[in-house]
Amino acid sequence: MATYMDVHRGMVGITAEQLREAHEADLAVEKDEGVHFEKAWADPESGTVYCLSHGPSKEAVERVHARTGHAADEIHEVPLTV
Amino acid sequence: MATYMDVHRGMVGITAEQLREAHEADLAVEKDEGVHFEKAWADPESGTVYCLSHGPSKEAVERVHARTGHAADEIHEVPLTV
Repeated sequence: MATYMDVHRGMVGITAEQLREAHEADLAVEKDEGVHFEKAWADPESGTVYCLSHGPSKEAVERVHARTGHAADEIHEVPLTV
Repeated sequence: MATYMDVHRGMVGITAEQLREAHEADLAVEKDEGVHFEKAWADPESGTVYCLSHGPSKEAVERVHARTGHAADEIHEVPLTV
């Protein structure tokens, strides 16, 4: 299992409810891919959302987001944490 | 107090030790600005580092990183978390 940070852009004006709904949609299907979305942070002003996840591969994380209708613009494995 | 996510680019090849040293340098001076750097994640391959912090303003967070020699390329207040 590896750790990933992905970034979504263009989400200007995202609300707390929309963020929660998107996160819950990911949680509902993530098990199919062996992924877990741990946390997400959103900046409604610039429209940027960061998601932290654990999973078997970058592609698995991408598939969860794609299935729930919000493909990430960028995704990075982050093997180093402090 | 608000929550911020900042991004550093161009850190290709960053090691666990370099990430820890950079984080410890921030921790050593952050109190002067009322900031706390909670966590950081690094992708040595693309050279991307994400830092999560809490502080009174974006500028205060920027000042800590600038003083410790690693100004962020991007910083966003992230008022929404899930």
